[in-house]
Amino acid sequence: MFSTSPSTTNLLLAGAGAAVGFAAAALLLDRLRSRERCGSVPPFPSLKKGTVYLVGAGPAGPELMTLWAYGCVRQADVLVVDDLVDSRIGELRRPECEVMGVPKRGGKADSTPQAEIDQILVREAKKGKSVVRLKGGDPLVFGRVWSEVKSLREAKVPFVLVPGVSSALSAPAAATIPLTEKELSASMLLLSGHSADAIDYECAARADTVVLLMAAKSFPSIAARLEAAGASPDTPVAAIKSAYLPEEQRVLRSTLGSWTATVEAAGLGGRLLSPCVIVVGKVAAFAEDTMQKQT
Amino acid sequence: MFSTSPSTTNLLLAGAGAAVGFAAAALLLDRLRSRERCGSVPPFPSLKKGTVYLVGAGPAGPELMTLWAYGCVRQADVLVVDDLVDSRIGELRRPECEVMGVPKRGGKADSTPQAEIDQILVREAKKGKSVVRLKGGDPLVFGRVWSEVKSLREAKVPFVLVPGVSSALSAPAAATIPLTEKELSASMLLLSGHSADAIDYECAARADTVVLLMAAKSFPSIAARLEAAGASPDTPVAAIKSAYLPEEQRVLRSTLGSWTATVEAAGLGGRLLSPCVIVVGKVAAFAEDTMQKQT
Repeated sequence: MFSTSPSTTNLLLAGAGAAVGFAAAALLLDRLRSRERCGSVPPFPSLKKGTVYLVGAGPAGPELMTLWAYGCVRQADVLVVDDLVDSRIGELRRPECEVMGVPKRGGKADSTPQAEIDQILVREAKKGKSVVRLKGGDPLVFGRVWSEVKSLREAKVPFVLVPGVSSALSAPAAATIPLTEKELSASMLLLSGHSADAIDYECAARADTVVLLMAAKSFPSIAARLEAAGASPDTPVAAIKSAYLPEEQRVLRSTLGSWTATVEAAGLGGRLLSPCVIVVGKVAAFAEDTMQKQT
Repeated sequence: MFSTSPSTTNLLLAGAGAAVGFAAAALLLDRLRSRERCGSVPPFPSLKKGTVYLVGAGPAGPELMTLWAYGCVRQADVLVVDDLVDSRIGELRRPECEVMGVPKRGGKADSTPQAEIDQILVREAKKGKSVVRLKGGDPLVFGRVWSEVKSLREAKVPFVLVPGVSSALSAPAAATIPLTEKELSASMLLLSGHSADAIDYECAARADTVVLLMAAKSFPSIAARLEAAGASPDTPVAAIKSAYLPEEQRVLRSTLGSWTATVEAAGLGGRLLSPCVIVVGKVAAFAEDTMQKQT
């Protein structure tokens, strides 16, 4: 499936070379070779018409998309995109691909109601188009994709889930934090910090590592309640902001007990630190201040 | 960064077209266009010599690798690979790339000691090569990469962590299980089931969703101890085996209380079910028996 086809390439180049001269053929050959080496990927399976692909775009630009997700974006008839998805990914589409932006921001006026997004997916698929619903990270990790799944099922529209790299795992990686690793951490609890009241602190205080998404603003309250549930105030904490966007990325290290003071000393309010991934536990002490670059 | 270069392509094609005739040029154009549309990716950043890339290969074949990981494999001077990595990924390397297989299987005679792997990485990097250490899934989720990180730091060899799609998240996705989703599950606890004794059952019994890796054999004991810690015997359980390998994939659905009977009725022992990802919690009831295909 993933073999290249050198015979076809050579045949074409032999014909072209004889006719247009060595220099041009060499240029062409170089270009094709450099694609073979660095830029070409195996042919993607064709998207099916009338089907919705619920695709994880990963945590940042195209580099952290999967080849499968990339193939979906490159072939889509319609792209339905959250505004959190990196704009470089949307630019990969075909010129004839229609783009529908469906921003979703809690409580804001320009948000697209989820019911409207559900309807768009069903409607476009029923027109016989291949529809790619692009979401940041992984669609099944706090991705709010379940409403879309239910609507598609009710309307009998076939759909495919394409997993992605979740920021919950990849942002800590950018700061060299091992989430689960023999002898370091045997368990990882993943939580939304959107509502501090929704967390089971007795469970969270017992996990070796806690990873929180959407907790930039609520973390002072969460930290206090983790301590009240038995976590030591000395437990290391690391917040990783914009892990794979070099100009915005930042790592803030602290402990549960001194979190608020650290945030103040750094001149970072909850809003300035958002979006971030917060890691609580011994492994957070491994966080490096200088994040890994993508090259 | 990710724009294609149509002007160069058109220039070459115009030259070729005039000389070799319409048919051949059209063929060539088709080939290039089809690459533009489906097969070409942005140029990858060059790998640095003397650097080790600790790369997550994802849960299966090339489709679930990231473009970044793909670029690493395509450019590596040396590939150091676990035997759990899909062989189709290793085949993507350049012909001149050296491959070192370093199988690791708990307690087995053909395992490569971790200290030896650590030494190989340091040695090959110090030769001035770009070294890609390829691991299944994500390197920081039970990936045993920390020993390698420490050795590289001690030897002052630069390294880069390249996150991947973890099977902990993607295998449930293949069976349409939402791990964390508003109103369905506010927390997900990730555990290794390798040792049933290492689990904090009071914590696990409180999490909305528990995801277990390497638990095929130990799950009967784990299920009993989860019940003893307060989990209901009716809690749904789903085991997803070989999620992205169509010929081997399988979903087994049950409950904590009837797990052993279900496994027996299906004629599946722990060994036959391995490797699998086990999901415990209400969301496991959503598991579909027919897994999603990759096309």
